[in-house]
Amino acid sequence: MPSVTKRAPTGAAVLQPHVTAAISEAVLDELASSGYGRLSMEAVAKRAGVGKSALYRRWPSKQDMVIAVLAELSVPAAEVPQTGSLRADLRAMLQAVHDWLTHHRIAAILPDLIAEGGRNSALSDAIAIGVGQPRRDIASVTLTRAVERGELPADLNVDVALDVLAGPIYWRLVVRRAPVDEAYLDELTEFLLRSLG
Amino acid sequence: MPSVTKRAPTGAAVLQPHVTAAISEAVLDELASSGYGRLSMEAVAKRAGVGKSALYRRWPSKQDMVIAVLAELSVPAAEVPQTGSLRADLRAMLQAVHDWLTHHRIAAILPDLIAEGGRNSALSDAIAIGVGQPRRDIASVTLTRAVERGELPADLNVDVALDVLAGPIYWRLVVRRAPVDEAYLDELTEFLLRSLG
Repeated sequence: MPSVTKRAPTGAAVLQPHVTAAISEAVLDELASSGYGRLSMEAVAKRAGVGKSALYRRWPSKQDMVIAVLAELSVPAAEVPQTGSLRADLRAMLQAVHDWLTHHRIAAILPDLIAEGGRNSALSDAIAIGVGQPRRDIASVTLTRAVERGELPADLNVDVALDVLAGPIYWRLVVRRAPVDEAYLDELTEFLLRSLG
Repeated sequence: MPSVTKRAPTGAAVLQPHVTAAISEAVLDELASSGYGRLSMEAVAKRAGVGKSALYRRWPSKQDMVIAVLAELSVPAAEVPQTGSLRADLRAMLQAVHDWLTHHRIAAILPDLIAEGGRNSALSDAIAIGVGQPRRDIASVTLTRAVERGELPADLNVDVALDVLAGPIYWRLVVRRAPVDEAYLDELTEFLLRSLG
C-alpha cells in the first residue's frame, strides 16, 4: 500500500524542457513519416525515448499534441519587424510566409495535415484556432498600423487582405510546386500594395 | 493454334465511352477512399467491373490514368464566358475557381493529391503539365483580351496575376476551411481589379 506521505510530483516540476523538445522532434518525425492519421502516441513516445505518460502529462490528446507542436513552429514565424513603411512590411510578411512554408519541417507535414483536415473537421478547427488565428492576429497588427499611418484606407477589409497576402505564395509553392525567388516576391509585393488600395 | 485470319480489335474500337466513364468514376472513388499512394489498378478495375487490360488499353500507368481523370474534371472547369468587361470576367473566374474547389469530387481528392505531390515530384510535374498549365492557358486568354481592350497594362505580369487570382480562394477554402460567400467573392474581385493595375 503506498505511503500517504509520498508526494505526487507537481505538474510544473515534471515538464522538463529537454524532454518536451525531444517529444516535439519525435512528433514532427512521426508526422513526416506516417502522417497524422497513422501517428500514434506509442510511436512518438518510443521515438522520443520516453513513456506515454510523459506525453499525456503535457497534452490531453494526440490532436492537442500535434497542434501545440505545429503552433510552436508556425506562430512565432509570423512575426516580422515593423519598418514603418507598408511596402517594406508587406515584403517582410511575404518573405515570412515563404520561409515558413519552405521550412523543412513545415514542408514535410503541412500539406498532409491540410488534407487530413478535409476529412476531420475537429482537426481543421483546431488548426484554425491554434495556428491560423494567432498568425492572422499578428499580421493584422501590421495592417492596422498602416491604416493608422494613413497608408491604407480606414475601411480596409482585413479578412480578405490576409487571404490575398498568404494565398498566392501557398498556391505557387505548395499547390503548383513552382519556384518563388526574390524577383517574384518583389513583384507580388507590388500587386498586394495596389490590391490593398 | 489461333487462326491467322482472326482480326485483332483496333484500339479505337475497344475504347467504349461507357466503359471509360465507369473507370473514371472508379478512379475518383478509389482516390477519395484510399488516396493516390494506396490506389491500385486492381482495385479500380474491380470497382469498375472491368479487367485490368481495359485500364491499360487507355492509359500506360496509374499516374497517367489519374491525371487524365483529374484533367477531365478540372480543365473544362476553367472556361468562363467572355463578357467584355474585366470586372465581370474576374468575378466569373473567381466563381469558377470556387466551384471547381468545392466540387464534391475535387474537394475529396485534390488536397491528398497535392500532399502526395510533395513526396512524388513525378506526380506533381504531371499535375502541373496536365492540369495546371491548361487551366492557366485558359485564364491567360481572358487577361490578354483585357490587355488588348486597354483595361489592363500591356506589361502585366500574367504569371503573378494568375497566382493572385487562384491563391486566395484556395487558401481560404482548402487550407483555412473558412466560408466563401457571394460577398466575399465580390470583395475579392475588387482587390484583384486593383492589384492587376
